[in-house]
Amino acid sequence: MVSGLNIFFPHKPFLFIMTIPAKPVYLFGAGKAEGKAEMKELLGGKGANLAEMNRIGLPVPPGFTITTEVCNYYTQHGREATFEAIRTAVEEGVRHMESVMGLQFGDPANPLLLSVRSGARVSMPGMMDTVLNIGIHPSVVEGIIRKWGDERFAWDSYRRFVQMYGDVVMGLKPGSDKEEDPFEQVIQQVKAERGVSQDIQLTAEDFQTLVQRFEQLIRDKVGKPLPTDPWEQLWGAVFAVFESWNNNRARVYRQLNHIPEDWGTAVNVQAMVYGNLGDQSATGVAFTRDAATGEDLFNGEFLINAQGEDVVAGVRTPQQISLTGSRRWAQLTGVPEEDRRANYPSLEELMPEVYEKLLEYETRLEDHYRDMQDIEFTIQEGTLWILQTRNGKRTGQAMVRIGMEMLQQGMIDEKTALLRMDPERLEDLLHPVFEDAVLKGIEVLARGLPASPGAATGRVVFFADDAETWAAEGIPTILVRQETSPEDLRGMSVAKGILTVRGGMTSHAAIVARGMGKCCVAGAESLKVSYQDQALQANGIHLKKGDWISINGNTGEVYPRQIQTQDPQIDDHFAALMHLADRHARIAVRTNADTPEEADIAKRFGAQGIGLCRTEHMFFGGDRITAVREMILASDEAGRRQALNKLLPMQRQDFEGLFRAMDGKPVTIRLLDPPLHEFLPHDTRSQQELAKDMHMNLEVIQALIENLDEVNPMLGHRGCRLGITFPEITEMQTRAIIEAAFTAKREGLHPRPEIMVPLIGRQREFRQQDAIIRATAEQIFGERGDRIDFQVGTMIEIPRAAITADLIAEYAEFFSFGTNDLTQMTFGFSRDDIGKFLPIYLDQGIMDFDPFTQIDENGVGRLVRHAVEKGRETRPDIKLGICGEHGGNPASIHFFERIGLDYVSCSPYRVPVARLVAAQSRLRQKEG
Amino acid sequence: MVSGLNIFFPHKPFLFIMTIPAKPVYLFGAGKAEGKAEMKELLGGKGANLAEMNRIGLPVPPGFTITTEVCNYYTQHGREATFEAIRTAVEEGVRHMESVMGLQFGDPANPLLLSVRSGARVSMPGMMDTVLNIGIHPSVVEGIIRKWGDERFAWDSYRRFVQMYGDVVMGLKPGSDKEEDPFEQVIQQVKAERGVSQDIQLTAEDFQTLVQRFEQLIRDKVGKPLPTDPWEQLWGAVFAVFESWNNNRARVYRQLNHIPEDWGTAVNVQAMVYGNLGDQSATGVAFTRDAATGEDLFNGEFLINAQGEDVVAGVRTPQQISLTGSRRWAQLTGVPEEDRRANYPSLEELMPEVYEKLLEYETRLEDHYRDMQDIEFTIQEGTLWILQTRNGKRTGQAMVRIGMEMLQQGMIDEKTALLRMDPERLEDLLHPVFEDAVLKGIEVLARGLPASPGAATGRVVFFADDAETWAAEGIPTILVRQETSPEDLRGMSVAKGILTVRGGMTSHAAIVARGMGKCCVAGAESLKVSYQDQALQANGIHLKKGDWISINGNTGEVYPRQIQTQDPQIDDHFAALMHLADRHARIAVRTNADTPEEADIAKRFGAQGIGLCRTEHMFFGGDRITAVREMILASDEAGRRQALNKLLPMQRQDFEGLFRAMDGKPVTIRLLDPPLHEFLPHDTRSQQELAKDMHMNLEVIQALIENLDEVNPMLGHRGCRLGITFPEITEMQTRAIIEAAFTAKREGLHPRPEIMVPLIGRQREFRQQDAIIRATAEQIFGERGDRIDFQVGTMIEIPRAAITADLIAEYAEFFSFGTNDLTQMTFGFSRDDIGKFLPIYLDQGIMDFDPFTQIDENGVGRLVRHAVEKGRETRPDIKLGICGEHGGNPASIHFFERIGLDYVSCSPYRVPVARLVAAQSRLRQKEG
Repeated sequence: MVSGLNIFFPHKPFLFIMTIPAKPVYLFGAGKAEGKAEMKELLGGKGANLAEMNRIGLPVPPGFTITTEVCNYYTQHGREATFEAIRTAVEEGVRHMESVMGLQFGDPANPLLLSVRSGARVSMPGMMDTVLNIGIHPSVVEGIIRKWGDERFAWDSYRRFVQMYGDVVMGLKPGSDKEEDPFEQVIQQVKAERGVSQDIQLTAEDFQTLVQRFEQLIRDKVGKPLPTDPWEQLWGAVFAVFESWNNNRARVYRQLNHIPEDWGTAVNVQAMVYGNLGDQSATGVAFTRDAATGEDLFNGEFLINAQGEDVVAGVRTPQQISLTGSRRWAQLTGVPEEDRRANYPSLEELMPEVYEKLLEYETRLEDHYRDMQDIEFTIQEGTLWILQTRNGKRTGQAMVRIGMEMLQQGMIDEKTALLRMDPERLEDLLHPVFEDAVLKGIEVLARGLPASPGAATGRVVFFADDAETWAAEGIPTILVRQETSPEDLRGMSVAKGILTVRGGMTSHAAIVARGMGKCCVAGAESLKVSYQDQALQANGIHLKKGDWISINGNTGEVYPRQIQTQDPQIDDHFAALMHLADRHARIAVRTNADTPEEADIAKRFGAQGIGLCRTEHMFFGGDRITAVREMILASDEAGRRQALNKLLPMQRQDFEGLFRAMDGKPVTIRLLDPPLHEFLPHDTRSQQELAKDMHMNLEVIQALIENLDEVNPMLGHRGCRLGITFPEITEMQTRAIIEAAFTAKREGLHPRPEIMVPLIGRQREFRQQDAIIRATAEQIFGERGDRIDFQVGTMIEIPRAAITADLIAEYAEFFSFGTNDLTQMTFGFSRDDIGKFLPIYLDQGIMDFDPFTQIDENGVGRLVRHAVEKGRETRPDIKLGICGEHGGNPASIHFFERIGLDYVSCSPYRVPVARLVAAQSRLRQKEG
Repeated sequence: MVSGLNIFFPHKPFLFIMTIPAKPVYLFGAGKAEGKAEMKELLGGKGANLAEMNRIGLPVPPGFTITTEVCNYYTQHGREATFEAIRTAVEEGVRHMESVMGLQFGDPANPLLLSVRSGARVSMPGMMDTVLNIGIHPSVVEGIIRKWGDERFAWDSYRRFVQMYGDVVMGLKPGSDKEEDPFEQVIQQVKAERGVSQDIQLTAEDFQTLVQRFEQLIRDKVGKPLPTDPWEQLWGAVFAVFESWNNNRARVYRQLNHIPEDWGTAVNVQAMVYGNLGDQSATGVAFTRDAATGEDLFNGEFLINAQGEDVVAGVRTPQQISLTGSRRWAQLTGVPEEDRRANYPSLEELMPEVYEKLLEYETRLEDHYRDMQDIEFTIQEGTLWILQTRNGKRTGQAMVRIGMEMLQQGMIDEKTALLRMDPERLEDLLHPVFEDAVLKGIEVLARGLPASPGAATGRVVFFADDAETWAAEGIPTILVRQETSPEDLRGMSVAKGILTVRGGMTSHAAIVARGMGKCCVAGAESLKVSYQDQALQANGIHLKKGDWISINGNTGEVYPRQIQTQDPQIDDHFAALMHLADRHARIAVRTNADTPEEADIAKRFGAQGIGLCRTEHMFFGGDRITAVREMILASDEAGRRQALNKLLPMQRQDFEGLFRAMDGKPVTIRLLDPPLHEFLPHDTRSQQELAKDMHMNLEVIQALIENLDEVNPMLGHRGCRLGITFPEITEMQTRAIIEAAFTAKREGLHPRPEIMVPLIGRQREFRQQDAIIRATAEQIFGERGDRIDFQVGTMIEIPRAAITADLIAEYAEFFSFGTNDLTQMTFGFSRDDIGKFLPIYLDQGIMDFDPFTQIDENGVGRLVRHAVEKGRETRPDIKLGICGEHGGNPASIHFFERIGLDYVSCSPYRVPVARLVAAQSRLRQKEG
């Protein structure tokens, strides 16, 4: 039989035919360049920037960029054809470098050495990164020694080349994540033989030994020798870059980050410059502003006598570039001023002229790119070379501050400030976090889905009751469950965080936690949880009730110990950003909120109303669940009405709280939605208690519960099907809403109730419920001698509702798209059960993303769009919103903006994110 | 609070505005009529026929018809307005009758009495049927006595009037089904007082007593007196007809039979004629052909000195109309020839002239209507009056014979012959039945859904194993289960019938039973089944294992005893009909068949291929389930492949059988579809056995089974999701199919495999499976040095697949609409769980029909139509079929014909039905 997987997508899911690229190579150097910053698609980010830096007069080592088109051509046509297609252009490029640098590629007397780097449009892990010192071989080594007189440098350069080339081009890598790098093993060996511990202690002879052993290792393991021909080395590296575009790690990364396969990568070939030619040489990284806080302060680090990767590797302690930075660093680390100056002087102190130039260049770069820059530089024997610049990575806090300050400074306009913000980073500002530094070296217990952001630390409890008990005693807890259910709600609300073994991003735990703004890691499948022993284990670690545990809702990581969290810091820059966003947004942002507390939080985050209040979440507190169960277990309508009468004042009180919190803003209240069995206990002990409370026989209770059980509860007796079969429920809820609105009105407020009927599939269902709601309201209006303005609308969450939206809109005053259920039914995916195949779908590229996280535009989206068009055809002023989980997802909000929805609704802590995205979407939409 | 139900649909789901009908009344009588047969919509069936019979010269008592428009006007505007609107016309109508009959309405000396009857387009139970003798009151009684000299007749006429009027107009009915009719109670009382047992023994005085007591009863119970004013009587009866259009029983009937509310009913007012004016008077019913067998033989029954309802009531033994009929009847009942002639002479013997006229009229009627007629007649003092004619009800067998013989006789054309057939009656011919006569008086144990037609009798067993054991001993069984599962398959196949407590028309039991052509009653919710006691009870009756039970799959009735079944009789007329249907049909009919046996049956019924073979049904026999479980429980791909290798030869053998049965015809084989947990045992004992067989630990087995459990299995890990996550399953099944095709080819046959991938939601899923299938096939072609033609296509059963059909058709060579699942997901209805709300939906008119029985054109149908259009846009020659349960449903087949599908596929026993409907649909489609 054929081998199953991957026969279909060996490399690329979509084929295309390409002819030979017209201009495969773009030159740069000596202040001139064929490319420019705008050519990122063709030259990659790095190549475009190298060209641009030349254009603005920075001292950049000369070189050339092989375009992304060549990469695609390679993927299609392979090595031979590509070689033929670009050979001449590459050779011209090398000659260009030789001419600028006054050196010769492969000439031992005057050798030009090259670097080869990949450079896609966005930086991407898993890609072949860099091979340095290409063009070196034994006689070139001799030449270098003759030229620079530094035998150790020469052999170290060769050693570095062999090591990198052997690894990234010839593929001599560790067999697994746990194995050590084979070259590092050899280095350790030689160090041991030589009785030294630091690389710096190795001599020229040692490096020569290393080169010999490396070459032997390559011959043994790879089965062919390291090439010594400079051109063979160069081509090998170029093609290795193209190959690495299609390696597994890069593909997975692209899938996760929605990067199309056909973007391809460019290859940058550049003349080597050296930061390791003695004390007047150095290499470093500088930032134009503080990447952590956003402060407008030039800063960075460098190492004397080192190559770039030494800085990244972190084996030596770097020095600060500026004096200010150096002082701060001394304060932080507690190093005395004199020691700092003696051992770790700043560049500003060491090489003031070079520092002045660097300061001039960083200003020029930031002014040019109008964003915070991350600059790599090398100083070769006192000469400053700028190797790379790019927009610097930054924390959420820095992102907001830099953006808003640049706006104030007139460097960027409002549109740029808004569009530059990464909405996902905004949430960093709203939740507690673990500091990166603190996490270093802490073993990971397990990994799950980052289901609700933030960080939390507390003691392990397995039952919601225990979370409540301990919370009452002030003990922080993490509630660990196989999965949560509505019965756990109170425990969840008092726990610091929630950790589940099963479930995805839209599991009960995830949705509830996000609503509460509480940290949650869901679906940590490697955890083995025993409720009986009140213990868990994973990764060889055992924890029991009461042990400390920490969870990171931003990464999905779980740690088997207490880790201090850092509180969120919302500052003026954040407020200004939100204000700016609102001025540019068209689509409104509401919140999903089930309690007055959640509504309050959301209002503080700027929610313009409630888009979804799930009334069933009010059914669990205190005596309510008892009344709810009484209603469910009642044998007739009279019994149900009796129980509902007990619930009425409680529901009314909840709604009063919502109307107070959202005075003057619309409050959409969804009528009872979940199947009734969700309100009944499923373990025998609780059933026994229930039987006692209800004065019923246990067997009768169990029979009733079994009778309510469903094969596919998702498609069962729920939503409006409850209100239709038990109209008294709809009546009670309507009465609670309208009466609460009267209370608010009496208090001088302006309640705006929108009553939402869930799970409508056809017009007649809606009409029946609409009639009950309006009749009930009229009855209350009669009783009160006064009226309340309210609307009646529906969730569009069943495919049939979307298909027949024209008919439903004849009666419904608003639609709220319930895209969670709509996605479930349109795909036929139970979100509780996709764990067995969705990961494989994502891995194989059958799905590009989880459709419960991001709206599936082509399928579910087509239905939504259809319903929008049909709904508006029938009722031009129909109010259209979305209250599914997608309401807080940026890509989805873009779509909802495009199709013209009036609002999105999301959990309180997503409101700021959605407000930002709303503005971004509008600005992009205007661009067309 | 407002009372919940029915506030929305008090009477009519759709409102419309109507103005006063222009011509509210149509006259007929004395061989002339304003109406005609074609005016059924306006005059109702009865009114149009009365007019038509006048037009063709039959002696029909004069009268008039109040139109259906008036009924709708009444529903909208009420009694007062309607009275004003039609008063003049009605009065003119009465004057017309007076003039034809030479009598006066309300004139004691020469009284005209009237009948009032409802008359909708189709006859309908629950409607007010008839009030006779309107216009009678005490002084008219005296007048009648004077005119006809028959005191007993006069008082009996009055008695009948009071009784009917009190019942149907004044609403004096029994309080419940169990209570006796209040008027009958009085009659019993009077008989007891008089010491007589038969009505015929009552005297004029007795009837007078009855009238007095009836009147008293009405005053007591209704609270107002019986009207004696003839006009008040007339209007009361007319409005009672209109009221009865909206009574509950009529509404339920219309819902069940898809009769629109706004058809309305007409009212027929007609002069009374009397069959109870002595020995020269009579009343009877005649059929132009035999309603049971279809034989072309005039037949019928009559009673001397009786009114029409006496014949219907069945209290007196009727006589035969013709001598032939009389003789047959004597043979059947064993009455000697002389006794028959003496006690029950035929009309032909008693009144030869009248008989001759009747014979002439029946011929004229059948020639005119070109269909078998059911004729009501009355002989008043030797004068023959024809009261009514209509197309006679008939058995399925008679329907086919009459239609085909009339075609042979040149009375009707092919189109008429085909369109006249009721496809649902066709199945009567294919299954065993209970004779109606046998069922009379047998108590009903319970009622369920008529899930699979036919009748079966056998001994109760509760476990599939027992059905097998007893079948081996030749003991007929009925398998009684809460619900069936795939594990019960073998037991089901040997039981005579299947009875389940839960589940609907598309439950596992129902679908499997229909496929097997086996009688099934599903969802008999009132049954209480205890597996532990192996006993059941319902309706106060207890049965245990081994007791006799009978089930009627045509009615859903269950009987607690043995009842003989009658074998089906397929005759030449049936074959001729099928042949005729095929000549007129466009859409092809295939069958759903999982075994060679089913395929054989379907082929004999004319299936043009297999539209759906569910391969998983092959996974249960013998050692297969063991191998399947081995595969499921395997921990890795190697283990799965090992188990699949065991399954391969068995699957291949199954497919060989299918290709043999369907030589030259397409065979669509669906790859594995159900979630894997369906193949694993769920009770501890079986799990223990499995653990032993597999040499595994019970706990491990249970953990694996629990791990496979799903919250919503319908939306879980099944269909192509299995083939994608375990491609080795797809490979094995493809290999089995292709290798089986080679075997068939070697045998000189022409296998036409169509491999169908289930549950596709997006193109990439299909492409992945398509690639595996084609690669596997190519490998086999390479091994064999030969090729097989085959196609690869998909089920369209997920809304997203329908929405993106244009994309999927780029790769799929055929679509087969799986409308079961498509309906589940489009509505969000789990067919296993709709029992709690669908009945209420149907009852309240929120749904007109069960969408799993008949396709929902507006919702699911829109998706299907969209997919058809999009699929053909991309691939004009794409083959389009349907394999859901709707493939055998007439209304649905009409829809599929309309939207241009190439074929429907249904269970073997539905194939003849579908072939007929296919022809009908085409003929209607041509009409446009």
